Amino acid sequence: MKPLKLHWRVVLVRPRNPLNIGAAARALANFGLAEMTVVAPYEPTWEEARTAAVSAETVLAEARSVPTLTEAIGDATLVIGTTTGSRRNLGRNLLSLPELAAWLRQRKSRGRAALLFGSEKTGLGNEDMSHCHALVRIPTTSGCPSMNLGQAVAVCTYELARAGIISARPPRIEVHNSEPAGHQALDHIFERAVSILEVSGYFQPKSRAAMLLKLRRSLLDLNLTCNDVRVLGGVLSQVEWKLGNGVRVTGHGMR
Amino acid sequence: MKPLKLHWRVVLVRPRNPLNIGAAARALANFGLAEMTVVAPYEPTWEEARTAAVSAETVLAEARSVPTLTEAIGDATLVIGTTTGSRRNLGRNLLSLPELAAWLRQRKSRGRAALLFGSEKTGLGNEDMSHCHALVRIPTTSGCPSMNLGQAVAVCTYELARAGIISARPPRIEVHNSEPAGHQALDHIFERAVSILEVSGYFQPKSRAAMLLKLRRSLLDLNLTCNDVRVLGGVLSQVEWKLGNGVRVTGHGMR
Repeated sequence: MKPLKLHWRVVLVRPRNPLNIGAAARALANFGLAEMTVVAPYEPTWEEARTAAVSAETVLAEARSVPTLTEAIGDATLVIGTTTGSRRNLGRNLLSLPELAAWLRQRKSRGRAALLFGSEKTGLGNEDMSHCHALVRIPTTSGCPSMNLGQAVAVCTYELARAGIISARPPRIEVHNSEPAGHQALDHIFERAVSILEVSGYFQPKSRAAMLLKLRRSLLDLNLTCNDVRVLGGVLSQVEWKLGNGVRVTGHGMR
Repeated sequence: MKPLKLHWRVVLVRPRNPLNIGAAARALANFGLAEMTVVAPYEPTWEEARTAAVSAETVLAEARSVPTLTEAIGDATLVIGTTTGSRRNLGRNLLSLPELAAWLRQRKSRGRAALLFGSEKTGLGNEDMSHCHALVRIPTTSGCPSMNLGQAVAVCTYELARAGIISARPPRIEVHNSEPAGHQALDHIFERAVSILEVSGYFQPKSRAAMLLKLRRSLLDLNLTCNDVRVLGGVLSQVEWKLGNGVRVTGHGMR
């Protein structure tokens, strides 16, 4: 069997300590990853991050800082979140880190993947997790489950390297009809669908937030191809036209 | 086959940054290890270490600080050193970290083991490595081989946990004749043998240091039992008696 390789991007969501950003960059460089994106860092002091990024200057210099998780995930077709497993898992697969490679092989994943790490204090939130196809848990003890962010990134990137599922070269951007749809295309479809449901009076104020998370998970689970998204876009256009001006694509999201 | 379990002690040799000591303690707690020993820390400011040892207060509080590596290794019967692999390996087995568990199983290791980490700047020295039965290398890239100390401890302890070779309970101290000799007993034998060779004019000034390392490695490779050490002690006593007062056990070591 041809070994599965993915081009990984590590995404740090709202990290608080610049030293951890630097330490994460160093772990990426140690294990042959190059892409790091930071979402809304609490203290965006890259100077301090640099002191912890020994020999990882390139990774840090090329790291992107973006305001939203959707932008960070970008064109990845697979999103994996990390968690200590103490929160509800929102109906996502919860894998132990050593099981991740086998799960990906079974799923025949390929192309670009994003690996998300939450902030030091709270980890990934429910909304962050609703973007994930699966969650992985580093098998820490129940007595001390929570890891330091830089150490968690090191352990996860070590595991990707150990399991041999890192592709150093970015994949050609495939837009063939049968390829999995990228996250941004899916997100756009989702926002449009939410707008239509909004206008149609589908949401109840009390359950709206939970319903949005559930709908996003359901959309992810469909594993839509580029062609599916194109067809779905046409369907949505027609409904938007019928509903008229009430439908606005922006402003409803959970971003 | 009964799975192999070892009671591990992590030994930090001359660490410079107290935050790394704290981070190491946290990694131990994360993966179910309890024993940490620090050899001659450069800046023994435990207060600062504490800030990095989130939820690992017990590990840090029970950590020992000792002046020599021999004291740190203590009664361990197996010693594994970590290295980036850039130095000469002194004739030791050099294993990739993911191969360690299989190597230990093949060797049927059991009881107490020590896992050594060198200082942030220089790693383990040749003298430190001469105490090791094998060296492990975390499979980092050639472009950025050197890991942060706290992250390296996290990756290694994760691997021990993943491979299922951690025994949480310390073993009964076995002094049966057929059990492997502890490091301190071996070290004592070694120091006595060196004294005898010294008095006998065995060493040349130029090659003395290299010869000491070589002899220590040869002694380790014999995998002596407690009984062997007892017999060897008798032999050495006889030679010491014959050579008379010139033989002093202390003062010749490489400690």
